[in-house]
Formats: sequence, C-alpha cells, structure tokens
Amino acid sequence: MEILTSNQNQRVKDWKKLQSKKQRTKTSSYIIEGWHLIDEAQKSGKEFEEIMVVDPDDLDDLNISSSTSIFQITEEIADHISSTKTPQGIFAVLPTESYHEEVPDDVKGRWILLDNVQDPGNLGTIVRTADAAGLKGVVLGGSSVDIYNPKLIRSMQGSHFHIALYSGDLDEWMNKFKQNEIPVFGTELNENAKSYKDVGHPSDFALVMGNEGNGMSESLLSKTTQNLYIPMNGNAESLNVAVAAGIVMFQLVNS
Amino acid sequence: MEILTSNQNQRVKDWKKLQSKKQRTKTSSYIIEGWHLIDEAQKSGKEFEEIMVVDPDDLDDLNISSSTSIFQITEEIADHISSTKTPQGIFAVLPTESYHEEVPDDVKGRWILLDNVQDPGNLGTIVRTADAAGLKGVVLGGSSVDIYNPKLIRSMQGSHFHIALYSGDLDEWMNKFKQNEIPVFGTELNENAKSYKDVGHPSDFALVMGNEGNGMSESLLSKTTQNLYIPMNGNAESLNVAVAAGIVMFQLVNS
Repeated sequence: MEILTSNQNQRVKDWKKLQSKKQRTKTSSYIIEGWHLIDEAQKSGKEFEEIMVVDPDDLDDLNISSSTSIFQITEEIADHISSTKTPQGIFAVLPTESYHEEVPDDVKGRWILLDNVQDPGNLGTIVRTADAAGLKGVVLGGSSVDIYNPKLIRSMQGSHFHIALYSGDLDEWMNKFKQNEIPVFGTELNENAKSYKDVGHPSDFALVMGNEGNGMSESLLSKTTQNLYIPMNGNAESLNVAVAAGIVMFQLVNS
Repeated sequence: MEILTSNQNQRVKDWKKLQSKKQRTKTSSYIIEGWHLIDEAQKSGKEFEEIMVVDPDDLDDLNISSSTSIFQITEEIADHISSTKTPQGIFAVLPTESYHEEVPDDVKGRWILLDNVQDPGNLGTIVRTADAAGLKGVVLGGSSVDIYNPKLIRSMQGSHFHIALYSGDLDEWMNKFKQNEIPVFGTELNENAKSYKDVGHPSDFALVMGNEGNGMSESLLSKTTQNLYIPMNGNAESLNVAVAAGIVMFQLVNS
C-alpha cells in the first residue's frame, strides 16, 4: 500500500482528471466513490485497477485481487478527487467497457430506448428504475452524455453493473424490434395515443422516451407501433422524464 | 424602464443575493427566471415586484401591472444573476408567501407528506408530480430546504403556483388525517406492508414518503394506517424517491 499525502502527486492529478471524458477515453478507465458503488461493483465481480481509502481499516471489508494497486489517501485528497460535497473516503478505478453499438439480431424482452435524454441525473435515474423494474436493457440514442460521467454514475447507483446498456441508433433498434414483431411504444400525446394503462403487460416491448424539452423526434415518433400518454388530472403541464418513464415502466411490467 | 449595465450595480447585487435564503427572508421576495415560470406566475395571477429582460421586445408578451419596476439588463448581468448555465434573459422578483403551519381542521382529499426529503431536485420533482396527479397538497416535514431555493423553484416548474404547499409537523398532520378517518399510507417494506396496487383508489388519503437515504422515521412509521411497498423484479435495491412517489401517486389516483 502506497501512502499519498499531496494533491500535487501525479496519481492524484490523474484521478481528478477522470472527471473528464477526455481522460477516461485516454486511460480506458473511470472512477467510482462511496460504499454503495464499491459494494455493487464487487457483487458484480468487477476487479478494481486501483483502490483508494482514507482509513486503511476499510480494506478489511473488500475483496481485493492481487492486481489491484492500493493507496492510502488523506481527507484532503479525498475532497479533491471527489465529485460530491461529502466524500465517504473510499474510491476505486475500474476499466471502462465498450458499450456494444450493434443491435442484437434476436432482440427480445423488455427495453427502454432513450432519444436524446441529456441530463445525467435523469438518465441515471431512468437506468436505475429500468433495473428495478426488471427490464432487459437500456439503449441511449442521440445522446452525447458519456456513460461514465460522474453524475450519471452516481444516479445509476450501480445499476450499470446489472442491466445491459447500449448506445446506438434508435432508428435501427426500432426496425429490429418491429422485424421481431415486438411492439414499439412511443410516448407523446397525439390523436392516436392510448393511455399507458390500456396496452396490457407485454413480455416483449420497446418503450421510447424523448428528451424532456423537445419530446421524441418526429422521425422516430412516426416509426412507433403505438403511442402512449399518461392522463393528468392536475395543472402541471408535464412530468419530469424520469418520473414519467418510471410510471410507464412499472405499469407495463405490472409490478 | 431603467437600463442597467454593470454587475456592480446595487440592484444587480441584490438580485444575485436572492439565491440565498438569508436575503429572501430579509426582503420577503424571491427570484424566478425563464419563460415557463414567468408564464405560470402570470397565469396564476401573480404580480411581479420587478421584471428584468435582456431584450425589451420581450415585454410585449407580458402583462405588467403599474406597480412593477422594469429593468433592461445586459447578457452579462443575466449570466451573473442566473442560477442556470444558459439563462433565457428574463427574470422576475415576486413576494414570498408564508406557508401555513397549521393543519386545516377539515383536512381531506389526496395529499403527500414528505418526511425530511432534503434534495431540492427530488423535492421539486415530487411537488410537480403531485400537481400533475391532481393531488390537493404537499406537506414538507422536517426539511430544512427553503421553498424558494432556486433549484427547488426550477424543479417545481411552476407547480408551487398551483398546488397547496405546507410546511409543518407530520406527526400533527397524520393525527388530523386519522381523526378524519382518512387512510395514512406509509412507504416501507415490512411484514405488514401491502403492494401499492392493492389499496384501491381512495378519494382521501395521505401518502407519506421518507428520505431516500434513511426512509421514513420510525416514529412516523408507527403511526401509519397501512404501509405500502413497490414490488421490484430487478436488481436495483431501491428507487429514486421522486420516481417512487410518482409511481405510487399515479396508481392511487388511478390516472
């Protein structure tokens, strides 16, 4: 175990830089922090490249492989490399995984497709909710958010260790679902839209959610097999996209 | 109309300070920004104390009373006083309202009670969702978040203009609901909890949601008439509190 005490140390600088996509791409690695994410990574059998702790006693609770480099850091360093206000004093660096761009030929099961959802907090919450609802996967389309963005990682709460994540062209994905005779549900109120409660609980579906400001793109909307809406009794004009996705997903899976 | 060009102007400094609770309390006013909130305020018949625009043509789309002070500001000032990265160039100052602390004697209808939900983004999203679901009101208990916190205001998307907001002691509120024979639903998995789908669609209820990290406090949990849980098929351990609140509210109101 190496002991680091200065924010000027090159390793500390490199960890800090992992908050940027550029550094993550360059090193093919990303950083997680806090017990919940560390636990989830371990439960999913992930091996850490590096682990950094303020209190070395914390290492007793970890399964660390022989290839993991271990560092004891100061609270000052923890504050410096953390992306939160109240760091828990435990961090790890993991290799990034390449998210498959190709649509699987035999795509089936329950999926959510996100058209240009940009806010990392909303995006992460949707991935977490899809995981909780037992969906098979999430496809990020048209989004420039990097899957290893620290805010996204935090919002996913470890769900990226459980659920299949793809980034890809939603047009291709929708075609594939339709070829397999799987319903593709859009979400936008129009004259042909049905209430989200009126389509049963199909064992295979693709639910497409749009960007909160602009909704689904017209070209994708025209390719859905059915559009759904959530009837609203009150005065709010719309729902937060992560809340809307949660309401529809839990209804469709009948959970 | 007064034209302001410097961030050093005292008024500009005062607007900037409205991001702090201290200044809001001192002046009994708060700031909103962007067209959506300005529109919602107008639709709800609110009068502005001050209105600030980068482009004076924007004033044509506003109903401004004779008591409103109007300012033309520069983009630099807009950037300075905004709490967002991409300000829309329109701001207004409104008087704060005192949120009633006393529980109404004849409390009925559909309510959500929030036990110590601290994150302003989640809190605001829950208020917005409660508004969309047609609930009668939201009670903030044990929370130190100020209702006029800029992040909360942004997340509510104007719903605080539509739905009754109270801050108060949840213990008292729960007693009042029970005196009126209105079910008080807690949300925590325990041996007596029912699925949120199995309690029908009561026209009067109080739904209590806890803090995401700690759940509902034990003392409140012991006072509920029924605890509810959301069955989860997947691997995520929990849901985001705003998503969970949305799923349960829309089920209870049968929307």
